[in-house]
Parts: sequence; structure tokens; C-alpha cells
Amino acid sequence: MPRSGGRRGQRRERSERQGFHQLPWRNLVNPYAPIEVLSADQVEAIHRASLRILAELGIAFLSPEALDILAAAGADVDHKSQVVRFDAQLIEEQIAKAPARFVMHARNPAHNITFGGNNINFSTVASAPNASDMQGGRRPGCYRDYCDFLRLGQALNVVHLFGGYPVEPVDLPPPTRHLDCTDAFIRLGDKVFFAYSLGRERIIDGIEMTRIARGVSSEQMLREPALLTVVNSSSPLRIDGPMLEGVIEMARHNQVMALTPFTLAGAMAPATLAGALAQQNAEALAGLAFSQIVNPGTPVIYGGFTSNVDMKSGAPAFGTPEYTKAALAGGQLARRYNIPYRSSNANACNVVDAQAAYESEMSLWGAIMGHAGLVLHAAGWMEGGLCASFEKFVVDAELLQMMAEFLTPMEVNEETLGFEAMREVGHGGHFFGSQHTLDRYETAFYAPILSDWRNYEAWEEAGAHTVTERANKLYREILTDFEPPPLEKARSDELVEFIARRKEEGGVRAT
Amino acid sequence: MPRSGGRRGQRRERSERQGFHQLPWRNLVNPYAPIEVLSADQVEAIHRASLRILAELGIAFLSPEALDILAAAGADVDHKSQVVRFDAQLIEEQIAKAPARFVMHARNPAHNITFGGNNINFSTVASAPNASDMQGGRRPGCYRDYCDFLRLGQALNVVHLFGGYPVEPVDLPPPTRHLDCTDAFIRLGDKVFFAYSLGRERIIDGIEMTRIARGVSSEQMLREPALLTVVNSSSPLRIDGPMLEGVIEMARHNQVMALTPFTLAGAMAPATLAGALAQQNAEALAGLAFSQIVNPGTPVIYGGFTSNVDMKSGAPAFGTPEYTKAALAGGQLARRYNIPYRSSNANACNVVDAQAAYESEMSLWGAIMGHAGLVLHAAGWMEGGLCASFEKFVVDAELLQMMAEFLTPMEVNEETLGFEAMREVGHGGHFFGSQHTLDRYETAFYAPILSDWRNYEAWEEAGAHTVTERANKLYREILTDFEPPPLEKARSDELVEFIARRKEEGGVRAT
Repeated sequence: MPRSGGRRGQRRERSERQGFHQLPWRNLVNPYAPIEVLSADQVEAIHRASLRILAELGIAFLSPEALDILAAAGADVDHKSQVVRFDAQLIEEQIAKAPARFVMHARNPAHNITFGGNNINFSTVASAPNASDMQGGRRPGCYRDYCDFLRLGQALNVVHLFGGYPVEPVDLPPPTRHLDCTDAFIRLGDKVFFAYSLGRERIIDGIEMTRIARGVSSEQMLREPALLTVVNSSSPLRIDGPMLEGVIEMARHNQVMALTPFTLAGAMAPATLAGALAQQNAEALAGLAFSQIVNPGTPVIYGGFTSNVDMKSGAPAFGTPEYTKAALAGGQLARRYNIPYRSSNANACNVVDAQAAYESEMSLWGAIMGHAGLVLHAAGWMEGGLCASFEKFVVDAELLQMMAEFLTPMEVNEETLGFEAMREVGHGGHFFGSQHTLDRYETAFYAPILSDWRNYEAWEEAGAHTVTERANKLYREILTDFEPPPLEKARSDELVEFIARRKEEGGVRAT
Repeated sequence: MPRSGGRRGQRRERSERQGFHQLPWRNLVNPYAPIEVLSADQVEAIHRASLRILAELGIAFLSPEALDILAAAGADVDHKSQVVRFDAQLIEEQIAKAPARFVMHARNPAHNITFGGNNINFSTVASAPNASDMQGGRRPGCYRDYCDFLRLGQALNVVHLFGGYPVEPVDLPPPTRHLDCTDAFIRLGDKVFFAYSLGRERIIDGIEMTRIARGVSSEQMLREPALLTVVNSSSPLRIDGPMLEGVIEMARHNQVMALTPFTLAGAMAPATLAGALAQQNAEALAGLAFSQIVNPGTPVIYGGFTSNVDMKSGAPAFGTPEYTKAALAGGQLARRYNIPYRSSNANACNVVDAQAAYESEMSLWGAIMGHAGLVLHAAGWMEGGLCASFEKFVVDAELLQMMAEFLTPMEVNEETLGFEAMREVGHGGHFFGSQHTLDRYETAFYAPILSDWRNYEAWEEAGAHTVTERANKLYREILTDFEPPPLEKARSDELVEFIARRKEEGGVRAT
């Protein structure tokens, strides 16, 4: 009986570097239709409300350069208030220029990733001010933890990219921090990475270092997007100056921007999902249209991050039922504009317990079934973004691998239907020893990296560890075994030189 | 500005009995299209494979009475091997008689539940041999724990029915255990409950006690299904005698049976999802067709419980990616036959940690988006069914409430779109104090029963409890505050009399 050959996702890979089984790297595509929580009429109602917001209330663009660009493109600019009003036609014309699909180029081409067309890419946690693990507890972000998170993100195949600094290394001086962080992205990983849109210089440095790491010309960088940034609007209805400077540089260099309003219903947005989504959509459309005015066709991602506050305390909540609905609705809006979609794996929990897991699952199902192309914070996010957890990072890798396997379509054919196996086993028999089972022994089912399926007695005898304790052990093993991917000496030397020169210049001027 | 009135699910109810906020009782309907993991062609391929299994391999029916009934209906019965072969026409004709939709009648009519038509009903955990909580640890099931689980199931509005004994009270003598357990169902609850199909007598007692509890005639009981049983086939391809006796009595009395093969791929079914589903479908169709032969039109549920073993150890696993796909595929098969569908909230975990939660979520999303009408084991199941956990019961209630809220459609209208609120708040303002927010202060968002959204410092100062620790506290509070629902004295007296008589008779004869 021939082996069923097609189950790539099931093949267990014991890499020479990592002493644990995990699924191999693969580019994920969602084969299932998205969940639609809005009717077509409701999508249009939100779209129309957004256009009304853009036409009547407008968006504040806190950058004189951006205002000039927008005025030249025909937007209604009030230079005093910095508010820009858009008519519907201008928005629709510009949005139509954004590509529906594009590839991002990693320094290792095997790690290139595609956005659009039901592709899904999982990113590390980003931008947490704190880090935590069971040994060290919770502490402010530092460069050492930063590098350890990069090692985890590189070692875990289900992580497709670094979507920001997993933790903010506050022990590095701000003017040159981006140089050291980008250097670590390049030396510890070979996947797509990130630059913060905090002014023009950091973006220009990030693009140049990416170019050096890839060993390509500036012309090739212009043709092949390789660097990601996320632009958060300062909701409600405002985009900050440094962010806009970043957008301008990223767009001019044809690099990738995810425009993500942070529309927390009840705080920075109305206390209704429909209102928060209308505002999210207005802010996203404004930023995306701006990017296309700067450089028609520049690759962009429609970001959705609508959640709600706890009305009793004002505390932000994530992975709530409202969050899940908003994540799915955001996908519907992004698809209306035919622009790749960004969502997140979010939770508001302070400890890696059942709450952290169920909130994360509610977020992930919203992202996956909302057809998000970029799932930011997919591994390691805790506390509504205030902490990156090493244990959560590995627990999330399990969640993501399970999703990856869920997205592998079922094979239904003569072989898999197993009629002959049933005939062989008969009534009341068992399939443990049947040839049909033995043929599939290695590849039949998803093999977890953390889940413990032993019976209670065996689990208790082995120490009665929670999955979080097992995650602690595994993440430390991964770090111990880690070896960075190779980097060509010429590129390495050029990077050293570039960083030395930029540090000599003082890095980024005070902003 | 008028209050938005339609958000029933958001109204917080502080009952006089329970000192905690929870969503009110409501009958849930899934407004979203199901997730389809199989193409239409694949559904047909599995359907055809099932018919081939039924025609060529047949199902062993370990009951002479069942064999006689099937022979009279035209099935091909081998009395020696007890194997029954069905031709496709017989199966299709009988399956077509099963109702697409029916109501189950609780002794409190406000707790009636509907199956079919995208209705969803959540059941307690059922049939666990062990119980556990943080104070008492893990112990064999007893009547005291049994009653406590009933109290939880009654107190928690999101639990719609008792789908079996939450834990097996092994301290009660088997011949009369079902009398005491049914008495507790009736006295501690007023929701729909369950009788085990372990022979004819237990079913007849269960139906009579249900009739007494409802205060209705036998004729009304015949018209109004009120009692549930689950029939598990003894996979592969076999249904036991006591189960079949139960089916015969339940069908004759027009009560509800969920026919659920337990097709664990790699053990009792082929080590492929397609094969396990084909076998599940064959076994389910055989049992469902049998029920319709006994009593055409008797209400039935198509049960799916396909999961996989850990190929390394043979241990059963639940909430795996394969499990989720099988749960969704099972829904597609049940819909093909237009019969309500049963799935579960399953996990294989030994402790209420992140693994328990993520496996449960993978199961629940499969059940919900597979359009299961009956979600068995929805609250409290652990260890692949070997343990009912008090903490997990309450954690699951949170998961179920979140799902209930997720299933509440978004309202998109002039009010909820909030344009005027955005105009009022302006660029860079906040919505905390806006009238639009104040109008919705109590009802805007889902209020959890367990999730802690405080920041890290506040959470740590409050004791740094995990959600499982909070669940322990809450479940004990619910039990402390519990008051049983009223039961009319005449019915209570009749029950006492009935049980006394049946105990005097010795209960169920040794089987």
C-alpha cells in the first residue's frame, strides 16, 4: 500500500540545531471561506459612514509635509487645524491603486512571505515594554531579552517574521537603538523584519541595513519590498507627525506599511462595535490613501485593532467576543478594498493560564477566519501588549502550529477512506496494528510541542507540570541549542561599517 | 438619545439567589454560516463510502430483538454473526423520516430547548468516573459531587441541559443509582436531563420520572420529547445490546437519542480523518435508521466524536487540529441528512491550565462553527472524559458565555455608527465621558465572570491569582448561595412514592 504523500504539515522535522520536533517552515494559505459577521449591507453601511467621517470630520495629519502632499492631491486641507477632509472619489481612487498581493523578501529567500490571496503570516510579539519568564519574573525590556526573543522567533518555524521589537530594549540609547536592534534582526535571524516609523531617519537606516543584509542593489530593494512598518493612527481621527514621516519614506522606497488604527471602543472610539469599526475604517482609509498618493502602488496592509474597554474600570480588554467580531468584520472591510489584512493574537491576561489561552484563541480564530494575511503579536503577547512572555511565546507556537495543521485540507480519496482497513479490522476490532495505520505511523496526526496527553497518573508521576512550566523548559532548551543562521562575511563587514559610521554621526537626532 | 434596546445578551442579571453577574438564560442561535472543511464532492465521497460500508461490511447489532426488527424492515440480517447489511435505499428512506427540528420540554417550560435550525444548546460534562477541585483533589465520583455539579449546571444560565451524570456516583448501588440520580436532576434543576441507555428498565424509569416531574400525561410525553439519551456505538461497526434496548424504548416513547460513534482515528477507526469520518457516518446512519424503523419520526441527533490518538503512546487526544476538522466535517454530514448535530467541548488535559483552555477552544470552535445543536460536555470535561472538574466547569461557563455573546449579531445603524459622538469628541479626544458612551455604560460590552483585566500591578496586589484559582472561589460561592428551583408538592410526593416502590422492587435487575 503506497504511502500517502501529501501531508507536508505532518512531517516531523528534527533539525540538527533544535532538539525538538516541530512542523517545518511553510507558507500558510487558508483554504476555508472566511466567517462573515456582517451582512453585505452592513459592510456598505460602515463603508459609507467612514466616507462621511472623512468628508465631514476629516483626519488630522500632524505633518506639514503630509499636508502639502495631500493638498497637492486635491484633498481639502485646513493648515491651521491640520485637519484634512477627503471626498469619496479621492479615497476610492487612491485605495484602488494599492496592490492586492505582494511578496516580502527575506535575506533568506526560503523565508519570503506573501500577502494577499488567503496567505497567512505569523509574527512575533512586538513593542512590549516588559519581558517575563518564570525564572526572572517580570522586568523592563532589555537588549538581552530582545535577542533571546529573536532567537525564539528564528528557531520556531511557525513564526514567519519579526513584526517589531518583541520587547523594547530600554538599556540601549534611543538615538542608536534602531541600529543595534536591526543588526540583531539580521544576525540572529534570516526572516522578514521591521522598522519603526518614528521619523524619517530610522526608516532610511532600516532600509539601507535591509539592503546590505540581502546583498542587493537599491534598485532591487525598490522592486522587492523587504521591510515592514506599522503605522498606528493616534485615534480618534489623527495621525502623528513622526508616523507620517515614516509613511512617506516607506512609500517612496516601496516598502510595506500596515496602517492600523487602535480603536478601543469606549476610549478612543465610540462604545459600539459599529462605531469603532467605522472609525477604524475611516482612519485606515485615510492613511492608506495617503500612502498611495505618495507612491501609487506601494504595498500596504489594512490593519484592524478594534477591541473594547472594561466599562467598569476603563481597562482595555482583548480576545473578548467583541474583539473577535471586530477582527472578522475588519477582514470583511479589507476584502472590500482588496487589500491584505492585519489582525493580532491578543489577550489582556497577566499570567500564562487558561485565560491567556482562551483570550488568545478568541483572537486567533478572529484573525484566521477573518483571513488576516498578517497576524501580528502571534507569539508571546501578554497583558494587552505591556509584556512579552517567553513561556507564552512557546505556548503560542503550539497554538499557531495547531492552526497551521487545521488549515491543511483534509484528503478524501480511496486510500484515506480506508475501506479495506475496516474490512480487515472487522466488527469490534482495533486499528492499532493494521497495515493502514502502520503506513501512517509517523505522519498521521499533528504531534504537539507542548501538549501533554498522558493519563493523569503518568502525568502526575512525571511531576504534574502545567503547560506553562513545560513551555519554560522548552524555551530555555531552544535558546541553549540556538545557532544563528549564516551571514555572508562581506555583508557582515558592510553592516559593521555602516553601524559604526551612523553611531559616529550620533544616530538619530533628538526628536 | 434613546437607549439601544436589542442587546439582550448584554444585560447583566444579578439574580436574588446568585451573587455574581452572568448573562441571562437564552436560547442560542448561530447567525453565521458554518465553516466547511469539506467540499461538496468530499461530503458525497464520505457519504458513498459509508453506504458501501453499510452494504458490504454491515454493522453488528448485538440484540436479538433489534435483529428481528431490522429483518422485518428488509435489512440483510445474519443472525449468527449478528451483522446487518443495509442497502442504500433502506438507509436513505429511513433517514429521511427523522425530524429536522424539534423541541425538548423541560419541567420549567422557560428552559425548553430547540434542536435544528442553527439552535445551539450547551450541556454539562457527562459520565466522568472522577471529580476534582483544588481543595479535594482528584477522587472517584460520588453522589455528593454529582449533586454539586447539578447545582452548578442549574445556577449557570449558559448551561442549557444536563447531558448525562456529570460524574458517576459510584457510592450509589447500581440497581437503583438511576433512580437517585434522576431524582436529583429533578429536585436540583429544572432543565432538560438525561437517562442512560443501559437496558430497557432504566429508560422506562427515566421516562416515567420525567413525566411525573413535568406533571403531564403519558400521551403528552409521547407528543413532547423531554428526555435525552446518548447511544455510543462500540466502534468499529458494532452497537451493543443494552444500548439497542435503550434505543428501542426511547424511540417507542418518542424521546431524544443522540447516536454518537466514538471513532478515535488510529484506535477504533482508521488512522485517517476521511476513514474515521466514513466509519462515523456509517455507524451513525445505521443507528439513526434503526431508530426510525422502530418509530418513524422519532427525534434524533447525529453525533460526531471523531478524534485521534497520539501515535507514539496510543493515548486519545482531543481539541487537536484533526478533532476540529472532524467536528466541522461532522456538521456538514449531519446537515446533508438534515438532522440536528451533536459535538463536544473536549480536551485531554490533566490540569486546568492553558492547554485545557486551548484544546477546549479548538473543540468549541469546531462545535459552534460546525453548527452543532447539542454541545455535550460543554462545561467541566477534563482528561479526555476521565474527570469532571469544578474549576473547569466555571472556566467553561466563561468560554460559553463568550461564545453566546460572539453569536449575538452586530447592530449597524445610525445610532451604533456613532457619527455624532465622533463629531463631539473630535480629533485626539476620548469617548469615556461622551453621552454616546454613558448611554451604553451598563450594556455596551460582555462582562466576564472570571477574566481579570486589571493591570499587572493591581492583579499582583490582589494576590496574583490564576483564572483557575478564581474559578475555585466562584464555584464554591455559587454552591453556597444555591437554592433549588421549586417543585410542586404533588409531583414531589409522586416521585417519592415511585422511587420507594422501585427500590422495593430492587431497582434494575442484574445485567
